[in-house]
Amino acid sequence: MTSSPLTRHDPARRGFGSDNHAGVHPAVLEALAAANGGHVGAYGADPYTEALQDVARRHFGAQAECHPVFNGTGANVVALAAMTDRWDAVVCTDSAHVDVDECGAPEKLAGVKLLPVPSSDGKLTPELVDRRAHGFGVEHHAQPRAITVSQSTELGTLYTPDQLRALCEHAHGLGLSVHLDGARLANAAAALGVPLRALTTDAGVDVVSWGGTKNGALGAEAVVVLDPAAVRQPRFVRKLSAQLASKMRFVSAQLLALHEGELWRESAAHANAAARRLADGLAAVPGVRITQAVEANAVFAVLPAGSAERLQRRWPFHVWDGTTGEVRLMCSWDTAAEDVDAFVAALREDAATAP
Amino acid sequence: MTSSPLTRHDPARRGFGSDNHAGVHPAVLEALAAANGGHVGAYGADPYTEALQDVARRHFGAQAECHPVFNGTGANVVALAAMTDRWDAVVCTDSAHVDVDECGAPEKLAGVKLLPVPSSDGKLTPELVDRRAHGFGVEHHAQPRAITVSQSTELGTLYTPDQLRALCEHAHGLGLSVHLDGARLANAAAALGVPLRALTTDAGVDVVSWGGTKNGALGAEAVVVLDPAAVRQPRFVRKLSAQLASKMRFVSAQLLALHEGELWRESAAHANAAARRLADGLAAVPGVRITQAVEANAVFAVLPAGSAERLQRRWPFHVWDGTTGEVRLMCSWDTAAEDVDAFVAALREDAATAP
Amino acid sequence: MTSSPLTRHDPARRGFGSDNHAGVHPAVLEALAAANGGHVGAYGADPYTEALQDVARRHFGAQAECHPVFNGTGANVVALAAMTDRWDAVVCTDSAHVDVDECGAPEKLAGVKLLPVPSSDGKLTPELVDRRAHGFGVEHHAQPRAITVSQSTELGTLYTPDQLRALCEHAHGLGLSVHLDGARLANAAAALGVPLRALTTDAGVDVVSWGGTKNGALGAEAVVVLDPAAVRQPRFVRKLSAQLASKMRFVSAQLLALHEGELWRESAAHANAAARRLADGLAAVPGVRITQAVEANAVFAVLPAGSAERLQRRWPFHVWDGTTGEVRLMCSWDTAAEDVDAFVAALREDAATAP
Amino acid sequence: MTSSPLTRHDPARRGFGSDNHAGVHPAVLEALAAANGGHVGAYGADPYTEALQDVARRHFGAQAECHPVFNGTGANVVALAAMTDRWDAVVCTDSAHVDVDECGAPEKLAGVKLLPVPSSDGKLTPELVDRRAHGFGVEHHAQPRAITVSQSTELGTLYTPDQLRALCEHAHGLGLSVHLDGARLANAAAALGVPLRALTTDAGVDVVSWGGTKNGALGAEAVVVLDPAAVRQPRFVRKLSAQLASKMRFVSAQLLALHEGELWRESAAHANAAARRLADGLAAVPGVRITQAVEANAVFAVLPAGSAERLQRRWPFHVWDGTTGEVRLMCSWDTAAEDVDAFVAALREDAATAP
Repeated sequence: MTSSPLTRHDPARRGFGSDNHAGVHPAVLEALAAANGGHVGAYGADPYTEALQDVARRHFGAQAECHPVFNGTGANVVALAAMTDRWDAVVCTDSAHVDVDECGAPEKLAGVKLLPVPSSDGKLTPELVDRRAHGFGVEHHAQPRAITVSQSTELGTLYTPDQLRALCEHAHGLGLSVHLDGARLANAAAALGVPLRALTTDAGVDVVSWGGTKNGALGAEAVVVLDPAAVRQPRFVRKLSAQLASKMRFVSAQLLALHEGELWRESAAHANAAARRLADGLAAVPGVRITQAVEANAVFAVLPAGSAERLQRRWPFHVWDGTTGEVRLMCSWDTAAEDVDAFVAALREDAATAP
Repeated sequence: MTSSPLTRHDPARRGFGSDNHAGVHPAVLEALAAANGGHVGAYGADPYTEALQDVARRHFGAQAECHPVFNGTGANVVALAAMTDRWDAVVCTDSAHVDVDECGAPEKLAGVKLLPVPSSDGKLTPELVDRRAHGFGVEHHAQPRAITVSQSTELGTLYTPDQLRALCEHAHGLGLSVHLDGARLANAAAALGVPLRALTTDAGVDVVSWGGTKNGALGAEAVVVLDPAAVRQPRFVRKLSAQLASKMRFVSAQLLALHEGELWRESAAHANAAARRLADGLAAVPGVRITQAVEANAVFAVLPAGSAERLQRRWPFHVWDGTTGEVRLMCSWDTAAEDVDAFVAALREDAATAP
Repeated sequence: MTSSPLTRHDPARRGFGSDNHAGVHPAVLEALAAANGGHVGAYGADPYTEALQDVARRHFGAQAECHPVFNGTGANVVALAAMTDRWDAVVCTDSAHVDVDECGAPEKLAGVKLLPVPSSDGKLTPELVDRRAHGFGVEHHAQPRAITVSQSTELGTLYTPDQLRALCEHAHGLGLSVHLDGARLANAAAALGVPLRALTTDAGVDVVSWGGTKNGALGAEAVVVLDPAAVRQPRFVRKLSAQLASKMRFVSAQLLALHEGELWRESAAHANAAARRLADGLAAVPGVRITQAVEANAVFAVLPAGSAERLQRRWPFHVWDGTTGEVRLMCSWDTAAEDVDAFVAALREDAATAP
Repeated sequence: MTSSPLTRHDPARRGFGSDNHAGVHPAVLEALAAANGGHVGAYGADPYTEALQDVARRHFGAQAECHPVFNGTGANVVALAAMTDRWDAVVCTDSAHVDVDECGAPEKLAGVKLLPVPSSDGKLTPELVDRRAHGFGVEHHAQPRAITVSQSTELGTLYTPDQLRALCEHAHGLGLSVHLDGARLANAAAALGVPLRALTTDAGVDVVSWGGTKNGALGAEAVVVLDPAAVRQPRFVRKLSAQLASKMRFVSAQLLALHEGELWRESAAHANAAARRLADGLAAVPGVRITQAVEANAVFAVLPAGSAERLQRRWPFHVWDGTTGEVRLMCSWDTAAEDVDAFVAALREDAATAP
């Protein structure tokens, strides 16, 4: 990264706090510059948004309709609101981003009732869906209308294509649509070595929150409708949810930069590999316990007593559960092997010298 | 603008459709690149957002709190929701963007009841406020709690600092707070030759939607709270409204690029001058009637019969009122004098040769 | 009314404050007692609610579906919410109860955007509808989906059946459904000497808020759906709007008591006649100006200066417009001719002896 | 109950379906008649509502403010909405009426996010509260602001005064207010032999949904505010929630009839005794398992295989859990000992003769 008098931070500093602590892939910046200049239609009436439709159809199939939005919460709320009526409810896990990390946006913006079900690995199963999907047709109960799954999950785990297919089939059998929160869909597809459609269209998913930001964009996500019958008026819902970009060409250009070629997969694979390296390194440190399967770009672990607090002074990362000391370490498209190795070495030294 | 294989549009083509048909000022793109690289805190915990606070305080005074958001509707909804309780209402003109152009976002996202009052020039007055601000303390009526004004207005007109001051004083006297939709605040300040605070803090405005996008940014606005007593928990309201950017450094960097120096004013002044040139040119064409005072970067006019339809084939612009044939022509930070002159010449020729 | 040690008010005192200042018709109390005893299904699964369906169909036609609710605001909100989607809007007059007197319930409970249009007599016309019904299909605008009219209006005026028919035809031609706020529908039908269906089903109205409370009930209204295609899931909307009575037999029994025979019409006609007598009496008092056509059970008038304030000490009634001194005098099913005559005499004396 | 030509049901038939299958206590009907006649102020400006304030203060203490509403869902939604801001959340059990039986009204009307926690006996504990009450001050999480408990619970169990006190103390220590859903508060107080304030004011509860309907009223509940600091503008919230009765005297008269003397306690004690008798009878039938402590007026039990289905043909009651066959049997103020004995005898015979 070239230095600039406008630069106010240390471009050499990286941590494990979040994949949105990272910046923008240079190819995305280049795409923004290429999309600049002259006048084009606002609110999506531009050649970049049009081209994105083609790219989305290439990834998700001919029926896909792609609606760019600003951020992940926006994508999720627009998707769920478009999938539900006023009287409906949505089944999710108790660690789902929509339930835990969006300050109640689904309920407060869109009046969507969530039906969370406990899940130790962040994944829904047909059995878990059944625990909340009942009361159909009874006016006393908000009506289950959809399920929402995250791929990869908030706990860094993955659904296999078979698991997703079975889940979608089960949901559809109950009359429920399926939303997939794909803020890290790229990481999942890269880890599983499959195309995006293997985890979405081909598995039976109806609507996807298609993430770009954590994958190297500046700020770009999209609601991708795979089954038009699963939604109502997503364009109006996007607008009334304040998620319609005026200069949309620049949102679409970011998603194009990632998804026209293989940049999305390369960036995600890079992050996943860093997490793998990190998990392997940590597992070899005495006193460390890896607490979730490391399948994408997150590592959940319990560190030796006191280490987390000391290491956080230099390396940003999150304490996930204050009661157990479990921490979350996220890798991103720009995490370097040296970052990982330095962190592991620091932990090893800290653990060895701890009082 | 340099050409690129990634470029999908004609960078030489410009029109008068909207100031958000224009692209991004090169200095803004440069600022994005400078903010890139390495890891910084997400959701506003970064040096760019911190620096923006200083710049906001320089423009709006020491009490200003600046909350970056994605777009104008987002800024307005977050501001109004933070300013009101569930039982409150907000007085506006019947041409206000919040009432007309946001697909009901204030009502539908935040349950804000709007109390629109007819205004021929897009401006509120103390008398117009009084028409809707009553019923205080009576539980049958949503309680007037705030007024919202646009500067410049949707009709391209301006409040003078004195008019704003009188309006704020009147509102405050009624116990109402004042929100200013400043999507084009820069154009107003440039046209009036005053600092931003003359139209906001010094006039008594309590909360501003501070626009960047129409002023040359890619997509960046902010809710600026001038009187902390006028809002409640704007940070939570921003998050639950899906307007909290994860990689916020890039939103803040755009606003910094515009407002750290004088770029905001230069860009706005350029657009205003183009509108002035356009209005003067049009006024000299037989059959043209300018319908609103041209005080910022918009020209409202009735063109000779049939001309609008024919000219729109080549120059994008909006028909504002289908019944009267009134059109709206917007100029932007990149509108060239040649664009204006070519349009006027085309109109003159069209009018002369019309059947 | 028999006295009772439990009675805490003066049963001989009546005024002109509102038709809901009046009590319950004895036949309604009798019906409540008759519906008591034993156990029946809750939430509408009872013989009274079933019988009410038959009575509703008799009044409104074979397609009518009747959903009892608690109060007028509840009926209006349930109706409008069931008629609209999240992105929709409803055209009304600027004196409509839904816009003025419900503390924003349509917006705040259901996110319904209202599009009020000024009307001096409280009535919509095709021309007034056209002023607000546009922007169809454009995502920036909340989509007009319905109109709502009040019959009789908040200003005591009436639509003729022809006017209603023309309005419904116009609305339907625009793709809009028609809601009728019939809190005083009985007064309208009695005044016009027509059956309820002449003002609803036969005129093309799609959904009615069918009022009982002001007509002599204790507290009973219903949403009557005339065109099932105009609503979605009204039973769920009623429940989530907290308008589903558990012991519904007692709500339905009230509506049965009024509507199984002619009690509804007799009570309304009585109130209308009292208003007619009142208006005639007032008109003969020097200095009195009747300000709205007296077509149902309300009289709007400007009284001689100072009279309103003095008379209110003894007779409750509302000052409608503090700036003009216009007052509203409501008559009810129990207003006696002597009440009217005494009030007129008192005004005449007051006006004659005023300082 | 005297027969009447208006009677459409069999007043001799009673079951165990719900305490709102029962009718109205004769004293309540008498009170309605006594409150009738003449004109009084609407919307609560009447002597009955005024007297109810005194009675509420007698039961709940001098600070109590009583706001009559129509039904239980209405009381709960008004209470929770008045206790929370847009960004807040409320902890409850996973069997809470607000979470399970109100079609999402808290979320959909008021945007209240619920944080349910599993509880096998329907009761919250300090430990259970701690599982959901965290994330304070972090904008990503809806802010825990209150807890809500039901007394008696949906499972027919009771909090002791000590348990309630400890829970309230814990909640207050976390900065949370306490709402008590008292649809069956009378049953709890009667069962425990304590005054209402022992379970509310004296225990530290801040806001109560005070039930009348299940206790013998026609349809009358109230939001009783015990700590004014725990709510904001409950009167406006009631109105905008469509829960403000116009002829409120008749709602208040019902609550007066129950609570001015001891009718509330006698009716509740009667229902509780019937449930006790029912549980004792059932427990003696081979193959019956009582599944929840029988502490108020509900009996939860698993019946011998097939018995429930056969008995439901004659006695209405609910299957609570289709997977386990658990049923719920509710007793009410009018359940006769003979009803109970006949049901137990029928079950005994059915079980003995089952195939």
